[in-house]
Amino acid sequence: MPPPVGSLLWRSLRAYQIYGANTEVGKTVFTTILCKAAAEFWKPEKTTYLKPVSTGPLNEADDYHIGRFTSDVSPHTLFQYDLAVSPHIAAGVSNKFVPSDESLLSKIHAFASERAAQGPGWLFVETAGGVHSPGPMGNTQADMYMPLRLPVVLIGDSKLGGISQTISSYESLKMRGYDVEAVMLFQEDKYQNYLYLTDYFAERHGIPVKSLAAPPERQESIILDRSHMQDYYEVACTDTTTREILEHLDTRHQQRILRLESMAEAAHKQIWYPFTQQKHLPADKITVIDSARGDYFQTLSPAPGAESGQALLNPSFDGSASWWTQGLGHADPQLTLAAAYAAGRYGHVMFAEAVHEPALALAEKLLKGMNNPRLTRVFFSDNGSTGAEVAVKMALRAARLRYGWDTSSKLGILGLKGSYHGDTIGAMDCAEPGTFNEKVEWYEGKGHWLDYPTVVCRDGEWVVELPADLREHLGNGGQKFETLSHVFNVKHREDRGESQKYEAYIVETLKKLQQKGHRFGALMLEPVVLGAGGMMLVDPLFQRTLVSVVRQHPELFGTAECTASEGDETTWTGLPVIFDEVFTGLYRLGRFSAASFLGVHPDISVHAKLLTGGLVPLCTTLASESIFEAFESDDKSDALLHGHSYTAHAVGCQVAIESVGEMQKMDARGDWAWAKKASSTPGAKLTEGEGVWSVWSNEFVDFVSQRQSVDGIWALGSVLAIHMRSEDGAAGYKSNAARDLQAALLRGVEEEGTKWNVHSRVLGNVLYLMTGQKTSEESVRKVQSLLSRALKA
Amino acid sequence: MPPPVGSLLWRSLRAYQIYGANTEVGKTVFTTILCKAAAEFWKPEKTTYLKPVSTGPLNEADDYHIGRFTSDVSPHTLFQYDLAVSPHIAAGVSNKFVPSDESLLSKIHAFASERAAQGPGWLFVETAGGVHSPGPMGNTQADMYMPLRLPVVLIGDSKLGGISQTISSYESLKMRGYDVEAVMLFQEDKYQNYLYLTDYFAERHGIPVKSLAAPPERQESIILDRSHMQDYYEVACTDTTTREILEHLDTRHQQRILRLESMAEAAHKQIWYPFTQQKHLPADKITVIDSARGDYFQTLSPAPGAESGQALLNPSFDGSASWWTQGLGHADPQLTLAAAYAAGRYGHVMFAEAVHEPALALAEKLLKGMNNPRLTRVFFSDNGSTGAEVAVKMALRAARLRYGWDTSSKLGILGLKGSYHGDTIGAMDCAEPGTFNEKVEWYEGKGHWLDYPTVVCRDGEWVVELPADLREHLGNGGQKFETLSHVFNVKHREDRGESQKYEAYIVETLKKLQQKGHRFGALMLEPVVLGAGGMMLVDPLFQRTLVSVVRQHPELFGTAECTASEGDETTWTGLPVIFDEVFTGLYRLGRFSAASFLGVHPDISVHAKLLTGGLVPLCTTLASESIFEAFESDDKSDALLHGHSYTAHAVGCQVAIESVGEMQKMDARGDWAWAKKASSTPGAKLTEGEGVWSVWSNEFVDFVSQRQSVDGIWALGSVLAIHMRSEDGAAGYKSNAARDLQAALLRGVEEEGTKWNVHSRVLGNVLYLMTGQKTSEESVRKVQSLLSRALKA
Repeated sequence: MPPPVGSLLWRSLRAYQIYGANTEVGKTVFTTILCKAAAEFWKPEKTTYLKPVSTGPLNEADDYHIGRFTSDVSPHTLFQYDLAVSPHIAAGVSNKFVPSDESLLSKIHAFASERAAQGPGWLFVETAGGVHSPGPMGNTQADMYMPLRLPVVLIGDSKLGGISQTISSYESLKMRGYDVEAVMLFQEDKYQNYLYLTDYFAERHGIPVKSLAAPPERQESIILDRSHMQDYYEVACTDTTTREILEHLDTRHQQRILRLESMAEAAHKQIWYPFTQQKHLPADKITVIDSARGDYFQTLSPAPGAESGQALLNPSFDGSASWWTQGLGHADPQLTLAAAYAAGRYGHVMFAEAVHEPALALAEKLLKGMNNPRLTRVFFSDNGSTGAEVAVKMALRAARLRYGWDTSSKLGILGLKGSYHGDTIGAMDCAEPGTFNEKVEWYEGKGHWLDYPTVVCRDGEWVVELPADLREHLGNGGQKFETLSHVFNVKHREDRGESQKYEAYIVETLKKLQQKGHRFGALMLEPVVLGAGGMMLVDPLFQRTLVSVVRQHPELFGTAECTASEGDETTWTGLPVIFDEVFTGLYRLGRFSAASFLGVHPDISVHAKLLTGGLVPLCTTLASESIFEAFESDDKSDALLHGHSYTAHAVGCQVAIESVGEMQKMDARGDWAWAKKASSTPGAKLTEGEGVWSVWSNEFVDFVSQRQSVDGIWALGSVLAIHMRSEDGAAGYKSNAARDLQAALLRGVEEEGTKWNVHSRVLGNVLYLMTGQKTSEESVRKVQSLLSRALKA
Repeated sequence: MPPPVGSLLWRSLRAYQIYGANTEVGKTVFTTILCKAAAEFWKPEKTTYLKPVSTGPLNEADDYHIGRFTSDVSPHTLFQYDLAVSPHIAAGVSNKFVPSDESLLSKIHAFASERAAQGPGWLFVETAGGVHSPGPMGNTQADMYMPLRLPVVLIGDSKLGGISQTISSYESLKMRGYDVEAVMLFQEDKYQNYLYLTDYFAERHGIPVKSLAAPPERQESIILDRSHMQDYYEVACTDTTTREILEHLDTRHQQRILRLESMAEAAHKQIWYPFTQQKHLPADKITVIDSARGDYFQTLSPAPGAESGQALLNPSFDGSASWWTQGLGHADPQLTLAAAYAAGRYGHVMFAEAVHEPALALAEKLLKGMNNPRLTRVFFSDNGSTGAEVAVKMALRAARLRYGWDTSSKLGILGLKGSYHGDTIGAMDCAEPGTFNEKVEWYEGKGHWLDYPTVVCRDGEWVVELPADLREHLGNGGQKFETLSHVFNVKHREDRGESQKYEAYIVETLKKLQQKGHRFGALMLEPVVLGAGGMMLVDPLFQRTLVSVVRQHPELFGTAECTASEGDETTWTGLPVIFDEVFTGLYRLGRFSAASFLGVHPDISVHAKLLTGGLVPLCTTLASESIFEAFESDDKSDALLHGHSYTAHAVGCQVAIESVGEMQKMDARGDWAWAKKASSTPGAKLTEGEGVWSVWSNEFVDFVSQRQSVDGIWALGSVLAIHMRSEDGAAGYKSNAARDLQAALLRGVEEEGTKWNVHSRVLGNVLYLMTGQKTSEESVRKVQSLLSRALKA
């Protein structure tokens, strides 16, 4: 497994990729002209030609052509297959070695890197066929070469139909994040494509289209043919157009670097960062991200020296899944196309009293996927915070009407300590006072938040622990389990009576709160994991018991005459139960819904982040009919008064359909079998159910749990949370242990000439890592290995 | 000017558009096969072939070919040009009539409509060349035909390079919202494109790829050639593949209609609508939107009868600009490509302590475009509501620190009555109690909201009016102005002393509030227009004076020793001034910033809606350095604690750059000259400045203002607000007058066989209409004419 590939950018090397709008459009001719002219104009700098994959007989190969018609250009081919067909077929029938996409890119990187180290020069990388012609492994070139992010010279098609080919090829490149810096094509006067395209690209895209005379007709005599071509190239290379295009490419190369190198400073002066004390953020600590693909950012590294051959861009594993959003990995072409389709079909259309296909199809998919008989309705908003506010508006109204309270009643949230539901004031008010909100002027915590037992692996053992406040009620805790799956076997544990003391404690607490006059309008939980509040894995049996108690004891919340449950079994009782699955839902923890770990059906469920697979903001708040009915009235103002302009925007909905659908397919196909295997404990006896799993291997979790600097660790689904021991033994925000580990991951390593690192986030004394749902076993292993080394150091 | 075009959908007519991945891929051959087979299998139904634009000699034309090789197919060509080149060139050199895109589409619609009325059948519409080959007027076919939204059969390319051509063509269609229902291409065994593409489209897109043997080689003898082709077609038409593809197309046609016709019912059961009393929303009042392009939705009309030839889809003018979001019009291909580019380059990358090009470039563009020397910082969030909360968090902190209040101080907003800033609790709390919030459980209006004078045109005269509460302070009002531009000449009015009474009233009010113990943390205004609060046009001089008073009288807000202004002239004084330009900014009212109408520079400015041109949610809150500095501290928790996962998402930022940039270009190019001319008052004498303008013509505004049912009207930029007189004289939510007018617009008209209507929104007794920034003069005239008729009726 080669190291992750870096994008190709060096100060010393002007590197461009030549894509063709079709085969037979003159790709090699234009590349020869560019190579030859660059070598002449930029003497004594070195000009290099690279054909990564070539098909057809050697003596017809493009590098052969380049070699024949230029003198100071060094042509290279990395892989050559004899049959003159597309590489995927030629490689398939060949006896020669066929590189994986990763190793092909790695080889190109190594080649270009070596070239860059030799001093200033040009590199032209010629592709094969059209932009979507398949590479040796069958993926199309436009997809395969994305991570290199070489700027492109697109060779347009001057033939009949060539306008269409050129524009479509441009769009396929553009939607994969390529920067097409110039279009070149032959002057052909019957179809005049070059005239049309010059205007088109100038007006629409601000891109220069440069045309040159076509080469002379092929001669039967080889000698004559070569002589004509030689003459043609001599003329073409001295054409002003050729000089202009090279100067343009040279300028764009400098501009790209100049801009990248000035971005941190510009951001430092003009951006107001979220959740950041900018007094502590000097410009040089701002990460400049040039692009991202799959699990990796491409980030700028300082590379001083006017002609430096040091790589400016290096891969950086996105260890927070970009603030918990990435499901299918960055820049997944399927997700892009889904977004583009919805944009092209609707743009955005207003949603009040209207419906469009993506919104309805997403609503149906979510209601079905949740497999929760209570949920029948979908409300759309823009992010987890707004979706949580919607959930609260829903629940409070339902509770207030059920219990006959008037509008001036102060209703609170029943929740867990360390809960987090977002940063808008209403969402903040659902959380207890703490670091994240106590200084915010309008914040006013509304409710009561319970202590709870947590789960952690320490010194190789899974333990359910109790915070100090709970120990007086529930004993000292410290119950040990053979595996995490045993902890999650909640029905079995319930049958064994483990929930009884939880139940007693909860009832007692609620009674006291009632006596103090507390009025609650909702039970609001992040099922299984409290994310932003500190990556706490809650004992699932406690959350299950809490929901059960609330539902079975309406008398603890309402007045006596209103406590009888009405309707069918999907009607809420006690309090409306809200599950905030923004972080934990949609396969983050390995399952469609985190509620399934508890075996509990909430009345309201909030979903965002992974919902759109990591592309655009969108949130859905799902609710039961018994909640919905609380807003039905003859008075318009009794409606749920919430809405955003881009409610149920088509792009977000379409992307969510694609993203959720793809994860469902992965689930059904068993794509995570490797993870289930790697995270299972050998010899562990599971009494029922399939157990829980994570992409982080059992050995790795075990290893980390035994480090002296580590207080505890847990891994579930794509999440890994390492609770570091602080120097003085006290965990919390003062601790530097997590920050030290984070810094070690950011320093990264160098493998086979490529530097790469892991970009991670800390929450107080917790360093967490989170993969996307498409992250490969190999990628996880790489990160594990880097982390293991950092912990040993 | 033809009527707006409807998408082509009739129950009776299975209509498909044949696009080719290139020229010479067999488009006509496959179309002939489809036509011939459809005519045979579906006898006696009628199969029709349409070539909208044909180039080349008549006897080589495609309809000629169809006619020769089929017997029961009626072939038609709408426009034919002799030269065998792309239509844009052939039409250019021809003496024949060249249709505009609109009239070409209109002709196709008329043709298909007539065909649909004749009973069940098939229609195949063959395009020319590749998907992006230009039409007669030069726009590419893929762009031009979008509004018809015919489902597509894409003819793939079986030649070398054809894999790339086929995929790129597919992507160009898809990103314009086309549904490609099948791909067909020739079986060719050297390059085997059909094998690759079959897997590719099945796996990635779930689309069938069907291949047939290629036709026999062309014979020199015409007779022999025809005979071979005749044989070929006979065989191809009886091929199971052909039957399968037609059955698939038949099924997809039925499914599309079935789905469209069941969507309202499904939405009625599963969607929880924003701001909607669903008890009053039966399923048949839900608008089913199939697509949208430019200013028009395509909405489903009931068309009962199993073989109905009545149009199922009709154009509907999006009269609320889709809840005030549309700038460049629906589904603008440039905006789509911008979104796709960012998605393909980054997906989304986390923004805390990081920077990427679209976010930085957008921040720079906004700071520059605002032309406000105070604003230096950009904070990103997801919508106007969250952006308003961010603004409030910023302002309250700055005020609290300046005036030395502790964290428990209850700080309020100084605003105007009827203000609206969004639906999250914090944004709601910025608005006075009223219909939209008083029943929301956690809502608690924090602040004080002043009365204000409004501007309206009544009986042809522009008047500044005073509400009852203000009359006791400021006299009876009713000041008349020659034109709206005169009202907006605020400096001149100030010089004439018109602001003095406003100033005295404001100072007096603020003193009273201070005496009552009110503490304010911000002055928060929607400059010029209060949107959701009832489309009130505020006297700009009043808002200007209010800002001025607040800034000049810090002693009215803080304790004496803290009132001195510090720093340079960009430092805030009195109170931080927030302008919520979510509705009014970014060219809604004709200018980049609505603040410029007041000649005032706020300290904080909020922008959303038009920011992304109507595609995805995004919001920016701009702030001054003196506000930013209030959060700088050695304590991390003093930072602005706000952030969303998709903060500064690349797609939104890139789209915003495109959208804002395009509107700036339109402004610079003078694209709104027609509107400036149409909305000017002949003979009006303006003393200084360029005046204000709207897309709604002066004559039209004047006409409406004189209707008996109309209480008043105003028009500014893209907005038109008609305040209706209610039956009993009392304006307000009980009035039906606006709803009656809305219903008349929705009934629409029939022009040249096309039904179209206007979809509008009402706020209480106000019906408003809002165009996009790209809406044409002709479109506005159409709407004006429909509205005039409705008001006369």
